[in-house]
Amino acid sequence: MTKLTDTHISLAHGNGGRLMRELIEGLIADSLGDRLLDIENDAARIDLDQRDAELLITTDGFTVKPLEFPGGDIGSLAVHGTVNDLAVSGATPHYLSLNLFIEEGLEVSLLQRLLCSLAKAAGEAGVKIACGDTKVVPRGEGSGVYFATTGVGLRPKSLQLGFSHIQPDDRILVSGPIGDHGIAVMLAREQFGLRGDVRSDAASVLAFTRTASEFSGLRYMRDPTRGGLATVLHELHRATGLGVRVYEPQLPIRDQVKTVCEMLGYDPHYLACEGRVVAIIAADQADSLLQRWQQLPNGGRAALIGQLNRHDTGVVLETELGGERVLEELEDDPLPRIC
Amino acid sequence: MTKLTDTHISLAHGNGGRLMRELIEGLIADSLGDRLLDIENDAARIDLDQRDAELLITTDGFTVKPLEFPGGDIGSLAVHGTVNDLAVSGATPHYLSLNLFIEEGLEVSLLQRLLCSLAKAAGEAGVKIACGDTKVVPRGEGSGVYFATTGVGLRPKSLQLGFSHIQPDDRILVSGPIGDHGIAVMLAREQFGLRGDVRSDAASVLAFTRTASEFSGLRYMRDPTRGGLATVLHELHRATGLGVRVYEPQLPIRDQVKTVCEMLGYDPHYLACEGRVVAIIAADQADSLLQRWQQLPNGGRAALIGQLNRHDTGVVLETELGGERVLEELEDDPLPRIC
Repeated sequence: MTKLTDTHISLAHGNGGRLMRELIEGLIADSLGDRLLDIENDAARIDLDQRDAELLITTDGFTVKPLEFPGGDIGSLAVHGTVNDLAVSGATPHYLSLNLFIEEGLEVSLLQRLLCSLAKAAGEAGVKIACGDTKVVPRGEGSGVYFATTGVGLRPKSLQLGFSHIQPDDRILVSGPIGDHGIAVMLAREQFGLRGDVRSDAASVLAFTRTASEFSGLRYMRDPTRGGLATVLHELHRATGLGVRVYEPQLPIRDQVKTVCEMLGYDPHYLACEGRVVAIIAADQADSLLQRWQQLPNGGRAALIGQLNRHDTGVVLETELGGERVLEELEDDPLPRIC
Repeated sequence: MTKLTDTHISLAHGNGGRLMRELIEGLIADSLGDRLLDIENDAARIDLDQRDAELLITTDGFTVKPLEFPGGDIGSLAVHGTVNDLAVSGATPHYLSLNLFIEEGLEVSLLQRLLCSLAKAAGEAGVKIACGDTKVVPRGEGSGVYFATTGVGLRPKSLQLGFSHIQPDDRILVSGPIGDHGIAVMLAREQFGLRGDVRSDAASVLAFTRTASEFSGLRYMRDPTRGGLATVLHELHRATGLGVRVYEPQLPIRDQVKTVCEMLGYDPHYLACEGRVVAIIAADQADSLLQRWQQLPNGGRAALIGQLNRHDTGVVLETELGGERVLEELEDDPLPRIC
């Protein structure tokens, strides 16, 4: 194996020839280490025991500026985003595929940090990188690097989750404070002249989804990423036809996140999270799940935030002073664009 | 379902809110039609019967300029590229995941044509789009659209292919003329002031790989994409340690492709194909497979082009006049950049 000696990515690293082989063998495979299944073949064989389980697949693309931010980077995001989509579906993720679209001129040392971060996140989530592909796009026709990952995992056949299981009076739980990721990325851009110590919440939510899956009353889970909590609540409303009522005082939002939102006129309900879960659960099991979640690492601020009902006609926020406010569906970008 | 009424993609189409939902429901799902498995869930359940079969996964990213060219477009490519990687591994492709990185400002009508082309290619190859993800990148930070697809398929356990099965004296077959795709894309750019009627060879190679898989002497298959035939031959040489000898007069290359290469100083051996297979097969079965291939649609110019041996120390081209020329590994870009 040849170590890559170039300091910057050039177009020739994507041409299929020697330089590309050196990039893949000397940097990508090296950085991904024991998380990597196979770079020898066009297609990789994966082992999944489907007895009593269903095969699930999901995919996600990743674009973020800056590529590194407090609490994470695009490499760890590319694992967490896809792992979490499987996790909230009730599955255990096993394998990822990895696409890289690298912009000509990207620093090799930065790429290496991102890939090492990706490998670390994959290791923590217990997933292998089964296969990958690398393209290099001309300078100016990318934004450093775009990643895409597709994940496959197994869900026990006994676990039945979905909108159709949701009933009036079910409770809505969230696993931690919302909006940290959106604000952390925005502050990392420094374009508003603001600084702060908010760190992204980007993380695997597997511990939360596994705990929730032990409850017979669990109906549905979702991670509030693009479009934030408000978008998940709107999906719930649209899919079930039920009213969605959220108690604003219960909603966990960090003071720093509130402050930045107030200064810039953003609504934290639309801010992306990358390490939170929203769970819908039968009313009589909601408190038990909440207690279990609160005992998990990073679960201290998990909260019961609302419930489904037959009388509201949309997504309603019950405010601190007893008032009501309709939480509209996200329209044009009223928030910092982070992906 | 709301039809998308916008004429151009805006950043807000990627923000997770209403416009994005309209893009996905009104254009993407509509264009993909019955090839689409599910847009309701974060992860899709896929049915694959693994009795007597192994699960294979592969992934590919797609960047091409122009997005449409004679014989294909980036939409059909995104199917063929991944389907073919499974096909040459001996697998039947069943499901694809689909990532879109769309540049702000892209014409909706163009996107629709690309997605319809993708759906048509998926239908022909018998694959479903199991899941997808859409990102919109700011104007100037993309090149119209980048696609990535990950494919999963099943390979019979009885089919054993790989470098380790290759033996001296095995024969090398190619399923049709090489370089058509590379030249078609280059001519479509019109940057050299050249015009021609070369069409891309982009197509599923499943008919060829299925036929080849019936032969007990089949050792290995590969599709010569980036880096062309020469790169496949170098991989064979590196992986097996055997010499690779190719008979230039047997090599199928269209006259128009030769002419363009001669005018611009390109070597057709490095040009990408997107619908050809290289197969390595035991010497005593090579002629039979060749006859079978030649009877397939688009197989008329399939050819036996060379053999493996113990005495050559690299990849050697035996020229028309009886001379020899070493075919070097691709270095920096000596050819039109097409992906």
